[in-house]
Amino acid sequence: MGVKPIVLKLGGSVITDKEKPLTPDLQAIERLAAEISRAKVSSLILVHGGGSFGHPVAEHYDIPGGYVDPSQILGFSQTHLAMTLLNSWVMEALISYNIPAVDVHPSSCVVTKAGRIVNMELKPLKKMLKMGFVPVLYGDAVLDSEKGFDILSGDQLVASLAIKLGASRIIMGADVDGLYTSDPKKDSSAHLIDHVTLEELKSLKHKIEGSKATDVTGGMLGKMLEVTFAIERDIETVIVNATESGRVYKALKGEKVIGTIIEKGEKVG
Amino acid sequence: MGVKPIVLKLGGSVITDKEKPLTPDLQAIERLAAEISRAKVSSLILVHGGGSFGHPVAEHYDIPGGYVDPSQILGFSQTHLAMTLLNSWVMEALISYNIPAVDVHPSSCVVTKAGRIVNMELKPLKKMLKMGFVPVLYGDAVLDSEKGFDILSGDQLVASLAIKLGASRIIMGADVDGLYTSDPKKDSSAHLIDHVTLEELKSLKHKIEGSKATDVTGGMLGKMLEVTFAIERDIETVIVNATESGRVYKALKGEKVIGTIIEKGEKVG
Repeated sequence: MGVKPIVLKLGGSVITDKEKPLTPDLQAIERLAAEISRAKVSSLILVHGGGSFGHPVAEHYDIPGGYVDPSQILGFSQTHLAMTLLNSWVMEALISYNIPAVDVHPSSCVVTKAGRIVNMELKPLKKMLKMGFVPVLYGDAVLDSEKGFDILSGDQLVASLAIKLGASRIIMGADVDGLYTSDPKKDSSAHLIDHVTLEELKSLKHKIEGSKATDVTGGMLGKMLEVTFAIERDIETVIVNATESGRVYKALKGEKVIGTIIEKGEKVG
Repeated sequence: MGVKPIVLKLGGSVITDKEKPLTPDLQAIERLAAEISRAKVSSLILVHGGGSFGHPVAEHYDIPGGYVDPSQILGFSQTHLAMTLLNSWVMEALISYNIPAVDVHPSSCVVTKAGRIVNMELKPLKKMLKMGFVPVLYGDAVLDSEKGFDILSGDQLVASLAIKLGASRIIMGADVDGLYTSDPKKDSSAHLIDHVTLEELKSLKHKIEGSKATDVTGGMLGKMLEVTFAIERDIETVIVNATESGRVYKALKGEKVIGTIIEKGEKVG
């Protein structure tokens, strides 16, 4: 495969206005395109979320619940259409910053099984990487061999691609700085965890489940579940705040950056 | 597979303004969406061309020539982006007419070999058809195992899909009425051929090649080369003028329509 790719996730809450349906945050998208362009990563895969594009439509037709009623069929088309519209904004920005980006549509190359990626056609994507393109995927409405259809999350794609393509690193671009010791909105003593092992993360998760509280780490722990499958395979993962200028750039360059590094191994230092 | 699908091609010259780069013919797209919706075909695949979206950019970077120079890499991304923009216009119109359309992007599921489809991931597309969706494909810039990349024409897709999915019929929606006995612009005695066999078509082609003239049949014969592979497998094909209101509707319904029917067998009547 040559150079190991970096997988960069841009959360839906980063690139869309969560309050307004079908509204991209064009300023954020442009800034991120500029950061990605400036970082000149030799092998990169991008995955973005749905934010105010995918989620409202998908929920309205209960696409994650699978096929129950014929009225959902048009709803599936509308959900996927909404995601392609968001993807178009991202693609236009990336290409305008001279990033040779090519959109890879999950619904065109995956049929999930009970919501999980079992087989995914990766030949075009691998060939793109080899030639220096930046494949861009997104959380999408996909066909499912058991449920009829389902939502395939960007996070599942991130982990699956990182494992299958032997990624060097995963960068999770979120709308928070990383994982916290407790909820920073409720606890003034909360501080950012800059480095954590998978073992420590699991005990943290256990503690949360025990307390029956909502995610006390600032909201990111639940979102990390999919990515732990990749971390278990020794793919280092860093969560950074992609709404803050320069963080994604630094993470792409491998520079020291505010965020949370999660590794499989023992905590060092 | 259940019901045999109809494959409908909408030529790039039908759905775009050929004179102006990157300009969709929204009136034509809307009208065709309405005709397709009204026809209520039980199993349908749609393929559209590039017109003023794909062709100018692809030619500028010589994408059909394959990879020669690094400067083409961004050109490939731009060519594909242009095609996805046209596709978005088509998808929005179809879905607004309650057609459960789902875009299937050739670059996401095909790597050609010297310009030809050898392997194409068809699982998602087959599942879509089974569930009642209308898959929509288009002539696209794709990765190629020998040339690096290439242009995969809508016409090659039409023939390949019709063969692999056992289509009942192919409808070629063009900007002319069909095949003519001679060029109607130059010869006042030219008339439309309403029915022709593959044998007759081949002798017609031979005659044209012998005369070294340009396509005297009104421009459509050259475009039919790809589709003859499907006709050889007994898939009846009709060319209709998709710029004329109602023709695509009639063809979809299997009604008598102005156009040229091409069949493998002997000419009847």
